[in-house]
Amino acid sequence: MELKNKKIAAVINDIFEDLELWYPVIRLREAGAEVVLAGEKSGNQYTGKNGLPARADIGYDDLNADEFDGIIIPGGYAPDKIRRYPKVLEFVKQMDDSGKPIGIICHAGWVTISADILKERQVTSVGAIKDDMINAGANWVDEPVVTDKNLVSSRTPDDLPDYMKAYLNLLK
Amino acid sequence: MELKNKKIAAVINDIFEDLELWYPVIRLREAGAEVVLAGEKSGNQYTGKNGLPARADIGYDDLNADEFDGIIIPGGYAPDKIRRYPKVLEFVKQMDDSGKPIGIICHAGWVTISADILKERQVTSVGAIKDDMINAGANWVDEPVVTDKNLVSSRTPDDLPDYMKAYLNLLK
Repeated sequence: MELKNKKIAAVINDIFEDLELWYPVIRLREAGAEVVLAGEKSGNQYTGKNGLPARADIGYDDLNADEFDGIIIPGGYAPDKIRRYPKVLEFVKQMDDSGKPIGIICHAGWVTISADILKERQVTSVGAIKDDMINAGANWVDEPVVTDKNLVSSRTPDDLPDYMKAYLNLLK
Repeated sequence: MELKNKKIAAVINDIFEDLELWYPVIRLREAGAEVVLAGEKSGNQYTGKNGLPARADIGYDDLNADEFDGIIIPGGYAPDKIRRYPKVLEFVKQMDDSGKPIGIICHAGWVTISADILKERQVTSVGAIKDDMINAGANWVDEPVVTDKNLVSSRTPDDLPDYMKAYLNLLK
């Protein structure tokens, strides 16, 4: 198992984009990684935009950058909720400072805007938040996937194959 | 891309198990394969058990064993509908006769029962259809994934990482 001993946090909240959460989670597990879902409180139940369920294994307060090797954030409207939690933003900032792989897809870029890690970074996102990304200092491009050091970004569920190939490459 | 030039059919109908369809489809695309969704008629829209949508690229009548390198069938209750179509059963039988990879998970075993390809095959499935599988002549075991020549079977969405690893191994 290529990613044995790697521990990844997937940050969730309601209205996550279903496949943007579950494809990366199962894909990382297939590669041997441990993936932990983090919600507001351990045990919280959330529902995706199209109806898929997800249950938090840990709370946001349990997110400790020393314990994790990477983070993935799904799109949908969950990022609008996730960005309101200073504990998550602090975690994202620490993961970035440590150069650990951060995966953002679709609207997940909002979380990285509020964590203030986008200055002069090359990124993509769903078109709707392009202006927010640029205003946060990013160099935005319209590509299926963009890797800038430890930050991997994609646009929509159609990009999931490219997104995970790039994210897995960083983790290896 | 390891599976470039491989063409796989995913057979769908209403109440498919959402992740048992979409995880394998996106995973195969990540590996470079072309994946085509087959429904009753090209363009038909279907809804998964938990709400994810899926649209048929081709109709069941377009399934031609000479054109495909593999087939995957999701679980949920879609297999109860899919097994009613002689064209699909004939396709499954021809794919099996040609030794091409067939992936079944959860309730998908029902389709292989009606295609009559289970005699003396080692398989697993969701526990609920264990008796149907045994009555069709299969040797049923309770394992995350079982490979018997070209036939790969798994039990539930939790087995998806093992299921796809085994299915991809057969395709390579």
